[in-house]
Amino acid sequence: MKSLEANKAEYERLIEVFKAHDIGYFFYNGGGDSADTCLKVSQLSESMGYPIQAIHVPKTVDNDLPVTDNCPGFGSVAKYIAVSTMEASFDVASMCATSTKIFVLEVMGRHAGWIAAAGGLVDDSIPVVILFPEIDFDEAKFLAKVDANVKEFGYCTIVVSEGTKWPDGRFLAEQGTRDDFGHAQLGGAAPVVANLIKDALGYKYHWAVADYLQRSARHLASESDVEQAYALGEAAVNMALEGKNSVMPAIIRTSNNPYTWEIGSGELKDIANVEKMMPMDYISDDGFGITDACREYLQPLIEGENYPPYKNGLPDYVVMKKEMVEKKLPSFEV
Amino acid sequence: MKSLEANKAEYERLIEVFKAHDIGYFFYNGGGDSADTCLKVSQLSESMGYPIQAIHVPKTVDNDLPVTDNCPGFGSVAKYIAVSTMEASFDVASMCATSTKIFVLEVMGRHAGWIAAAGGLVDDSIPVVILFPEIDFDEAKFLAKVDANVKEFGYCTIVVSEGTKWPDGRFLAEQGTRDDFGHAQLGGAAPVVANLIKDALGYKYHWAVADYLQRSARHLASESDVEQAYALGEAAVNMALEGKNSVMPAIIRTSNNPYTWEIGSGELKDIANVEKMMPMDYISDDGFGITDACREYLQPLIEGENYPPYKNGLPDYVVMKKEMVEKKLPSFEV
Repeated sequence: MKSLEANKAEYERLIEVFKAHDIGYFFYNGGGDSADTCLKVSQLSESMGYPIQAIHVPKTVDNDLPVTDNCPGFGSVAKYIAVSTMEASFDVASMCATSTKIFVLEVMGRHAGWIAAAGGLVDDSIPVVILFPEIDFDEAKFLAKVDANVKEFGYCTIVVSEGTKWPDGRFLAEQGTRDDFGHAQLGGAAPVVANLIKDALGYKYHWAVADYLQRSARHLASESDVEQAYALGEAAVNMALEGKNSVMPAIIRTSNNPYTWEIGSGELKDIANVEKMMPMDYISDDGFGITDACREYLQPLIEGENYPPYKNGLPDYVVMKKEMVEKKLPSFEV
Repeated sequence: MKSLEANKAEYERLIEVFKAHDIGYFFYNGGGDSADTCLKVSQLSESMGYPIQAIHVPKTVDNDLPVTDNCPGFGSVAKYIAVSTMEASFDVASMCATSTKIFVLEVMGRHAGWIAAAGGLVDDSIPVVILFPEIDFDEAKFLAKVDANVKEFGYCTIVVSEGTKWPDGRFLAEQGTRDDFGHAQLGGAAPVVANLIKDALGYKYHWAVADYLQRSARHLASESDVEQAYALGEAAVNMALEGKNSVMPAIIRTSNNPYTWEIGSGELKDIANVEKMMPMDYISDDGFGITDACREYLQPLIEGENYPPYKNGLPDYVVMKKEMVEKKLPSFEV
């Protein structure tokens, strides 16, 4: 939601509903925007004299919340991207002598390259070029790098973030073309990159856009991620029972290798509207890969496999019933 | 390779190489084109008086070889598409009240809708509309179906085959647009479908193109598929040892439910250049879904999970060393 001033009636209604149903704990699960809403609910409850304990529970594949080592959801997306990059690369490698030499995988991350960085977790027998949103796209340098990989390895895999931009600030995904009806064609960054390579170097390509597949792929969850998600949920409940308010439980990393961590916490005022960007020393000097420091950070987050139960060949996921409690207040019109 | 006449020198060289290395068995693993090459090698060996036993081992995600119940590789792709359709649908369902209502997943299959059909394996609590290459795209009927799903379920998932065509025969993926340099924009069928919906119905969308991810996803292999792949490989070796030639081992289905099968075989002359299309009674009357007959056929092929071993969070796949034997013949120039 927007600011308290702009949405005062909605926020007040929230508190009224809490009051009517005798709700004292408010848990909000999400990223930076949710943390901000959670903070506002807590502030308003104070100013309205109704005691709500607002606890934010971190969860975002963007991995951009401060204080916490990482955000639940991210480790599993990173695992999905690393595994997919590896598997598709083997596919291309098997045919590259006589056919497709280029594979482009577009991944999420409009502002930060955390997800794209996961493509760098494959071992160095696989030539991967990463395009980060943090680094202006340098076409000539990129094409030279791709060509060098094809000449050395026979093929090249490119992991491109949806947020990668030209030096003038336009997204690669903005093709600037229109169809017969004058509609802008939104084609994704992957086909743009693939076509640039084809035009300049003549290599045959394939491309994929993972989109929601990457963030919903519970079938390939990281055990580390699942374990931390449960631990943070439990910690949130305990913090509520301890009377805490306007806080978020967090993962505090205590060692890289072996990876050890403990539960800590942060104040929402230090978390709301703060985006944790990828440190520049996580990106290699040429701008197309990850450094050892980045690998040390990411590696533990994809460790372990946590498979769902299956039924008839498909995951047997729990679906919430979402039964509404009886309404106690008159209807509210926005 | 092309016909014996067009590539006579290459085929003869093959036989010469076999002779020089005392090779008597030729196993060729692939789809319809490979079966054809395998048949030609067998014919030529006969006409050149050098006895080669040519055995074709079926393997193609296109699932279009005759004689065999299905083709190794297909069951795992079908599982990947069914699981991905399910997972992404849950993602959309969770947000559809206030945000994205449409998810479009583009899948492989330029000629036949076998892979697209797998999107219909999710249970009917998930609204899926399938666009098959076998059915001319009827825009008005499609939009009405999507709109009805959004009104009933709150969202709609579309699985579109890369081979889906307009009534005039053009692929949906051909956008007919060019960039600033006059290059044709190849954007895939998914963004075209997504934009059609947005323009006509105003619904917010996301789209994905699975491309190689779907056919290289060994991490999500179907146990049934893996079991049959090994069984066919073993059968091919046994057929060679029994002196067979110009044949292909095949899966013969003996019962749907419970699914039972045995190893049979076919003659390459009945297999080469024969494409097994999807029976029309596998596609529902409205053209947007699968029938019970199709579900009975597909369901056993995605049963069971066969996970690879993992190391450091990534699959520990076997990589062939591909060591060449010493060359015995002088070099050959094409």
